[in-house]
Amino acid sequence: MNNYFANRRSVRVYDHERPVPDSLIHSLLEQAIHAPNTGNMQLYSVIVTREPERLAALAPAHYSQPAIANAMVALTFCLDLNRFGRWCRLNGTEPGLANLQGFTWGVIDTSVFAQQFCTLAEMEGLGTCYLGTTTYNAALIAEALHLPHGVIPVVTVTVGYPAEPEAGPTDRLPLEAVMHFEEYADPTDDELRALYAPQEALESNRRFVAENNKENLAQVFAEVRYPRDQAEHFSRVYKEFLQSQGVSL
Amino acid sequence: MNNYFANRRSVRVYDHERPVPDSLIHSLLEQAIHAPNTGNMQLYSVIVTREPERLAALAPAHYSQPAIANAMVALTFCLDLNRFGRWCRLNGTEPGLANLQGFTWGVIDTSVFAQQFCTLAEMEGLGTCYLGTTTYNAALIAEALHLPHGVIPVVTVTVGYPAEPEAGPTDRLPLEAVMHFEEYADPTDDELRALYAPQEALESNRRFVAENNKENLAQVFAEVRYPRDQAEHFSRVYKEFLQSQGVSL
Repeated sequence: MNNYFANRRSVRVYDHERPVPDSLIHSLLEQAIHAPNTGNMQLYSVIVTREPERLAALAPAHYSQPAIANAMVALTFCLDLNRFGRWCRLNGTEPGLANLQGFTWGVIDTSVFAQQFCTLAEMEGLGTCYLGTTTYNAALIAEALHLPHGVIPVVTVTVGYPAEPEAGPTDRLPLEAVMHFEEYADPTDDELRALYAPQEALESNRRFVAENNKENLAQVFAEVRYPRDQAEHFSRVYKEFLQSQGVSL
Repeated sequence: MNNYFANRRSVRVYDHERPVPDSLIHSLLEQAIHAPNTGNMQLYSVIVTREPERLAALAPAHYSQPAIANAMVALTFCLDLNRFGRWCRLNGTEPGLANLQGFTWGVIDTSVFAQQFCTLAEMEGLGTCYLGTTTYNAALIAEALHLPHGVIPVVTVTVGYPAEPEAGPTDRLPLEAVMHFEEYADPTDDELRALYAPQEALESNRRFVAENNKENLAQVFAEVRYPRDQAEHFSRVYKEFLQSQGVSL
């Protein structure tokens, strides 16, 4: 068993002396498309950005966060109903996936494809980072990448050879928090507190709480990083974008 | 580079003489939780089913398709807003992710976690198969697995040592259909036909068209496998289930 999986972490600072060859991206994606997908419809596309002015045009959609500001390459993985839909219409039929089922399957398949690419890239020594901001500013991204009707940005992965010093894996909840045998076993309040206690005790997370003038880590998540009004605002914005691309949830 | 990635395929028939030890599932999931996720909130859980009567109870939700009927183990990967939400409330705050943004991130993170598990399982010699039916009958699955409010089935993966004879990888579109550099380059009609031509020409797909009395492969997809009325019906059903679990899109 390759020990890489348990020790991986996201990498946000890249070595600008070491370009990432197109041929390597091509070879990694060529392998990644063999990841599973729903019914072999391959409802995804990926747009590879590596020209500096193109990366600069994408950056504001991702709030110019370090990973995109530093990226050597960015891959925008999209749910793609355009290709499949056009093929159906060329063959005298109409697809029926511009709804919640098609959206959910498309997000699953796009994510699986993206993750297969990341695994392959990391095994080649590249560093990768997912940008969760993709679902905030999908319309800006679609404009920058000339996405046609039916193509929806889902995740962005930045790529480059790591310039960061080696660091250990990011903390995770103990597996017991996440894994259930046979039935979902909801923990008691005390058990739940115990599951989160190691994360709450981390020096980096305690600093995070102090810097944000909050009482605890949960408040930083719910009130600073992912506040409800922001999530609800961007839910409306993403839903309107989906609608403009032909998908009704 | 491990050659496994380009040659993998889903496996639906498992060797019942070779059980899958709990310790192996545990070890694979322990590594898989280091896959990336949004903001390290880990909005997912996995329920591992391996008792035969429990597998039998899950099977109808998946139309008793061969993979579940034969599975040694089934893993139901769920978007989980329950754990994170309870932790927030124990800490005097309210999460704000029961909306389209939380749903989309949760589906992405759940899929990435599931795919990391599948990669690790396949590298250990196990066969895996995703069941797309998970989003059709989520309420039945939730009942069978005792999922609490806020926990939503997204993908199911069946697992076992392969009993099938070795077979090559499943056909995929040429990478050029899926990969774009800098901008989305929409193919012409002729180019699009050429991209799908190798798949349409496959003996297995030609048989598929004939058996279904259709004129072409696109019609089989759009009219037999994934017809619009069925997708729209299950979209309504899944949306109602999401609502009953507290998520409004």
